[in-house]
Amino acid sequence: MEPRIHTITLAVENLERALVFYRDGLGLASEGVIGTQFHDDVSGADGAVAMFHLAGGLVLSLYPRTELAKDAGLPYALPTSGEFSLGHFVNSREEVDQLVNRIGSTGGSLREKPRERPWGIYSGYVQDPDGHLWEIMHSPLVDPNA
Amino acid sequence: MEPRIHTITLAVENLERALVFYRDGLGLASEGVIGTQFHDDVSGADGAVAMFHLAGGLVLSLYPRTELAKDAGLPYALPTSGEFSLGHFVNSREEVDQLVNRIGSTGGSLREKPRERPWGIYSGYVQDPDGHLWEIMHSPLVDPNA
Repeated sequence: MEPRIHTITLAVENLERALVFYRDGLGLASEGVIGTQFHDDVSGADGAVAMFHLAGGLVLSLYPRTELAKDAGLPYALPTSGEFSLGHFVNSREEVDQLVNRIGSTGGSLREKPRERPWGIYSGYVQDPDGHLWEIMHSPLVDPNA
Repeated sequence: MEPRIHTITLAVENLERALVFYRDGLGLASEGVIGTQFHDDVSGADGAVAMFHLAGGLVLSLYPRTELAKDAGLPYALPTSGEFSLGHFVNSREEVDQLVNRIGSTGGSLREKPRERPWGIYSGYVQDPDGHLWEIMHSPLVDPNA
């Protein structure tokens, strides 16, 4: 298997709410909701999705929780946090603080205040409107744009 | 915010079991378990983690579920699937079938057999030993190595 992840799809309760957070709050570019013309007769899943084209070719997708369950053949499950975390490096501790505060004011919520962690990073955790974890990090050893 | 995800951290029940699946089963390169010397006195989280350096600068990390909960200040929650899905494109439908079958024989499990989906992809879903979803996909419009 080639060592590459092409897409990350997040299950969301409300596509518009999540889009507002990621596009308008965080400022990630998106065409908005696309794929509304598609419906899968086999699983019953609808195709409406919002996508963000990120650096390195990665695509972040927002997809309704109900539809991901149908598409993957899983029973619908209530939202929970702690299954995974997405990590984002910035250039300084001050930028960690700023971004964490900004996320908290754009529909996300603060989970853990930024602080030094013993494995060499300064980081804090926030959650998007669906509870998905983001860790905002700084390390003097990591160039966020490398 | 820069449009970049630097890390994806998956909560796992057993670090060694997950490492065997991703390193030995899927063939992703890893130094193995690192960070065992670290302990965070504030949260009680241990630092042991396994990392995989993927294309595009993305790092996939495996981190015990208990420790991610401590690090993020969340209550421990039982594993569930359907919160997210990681997507991987390959060059042909045959490669989708082959990879899905291979994952099923290396500690993962088949979730949804590959088939045509109406939004222009041929794909199937598998789950890693912790239930995390991977969608293996082919689209004539997507070059997996672009």
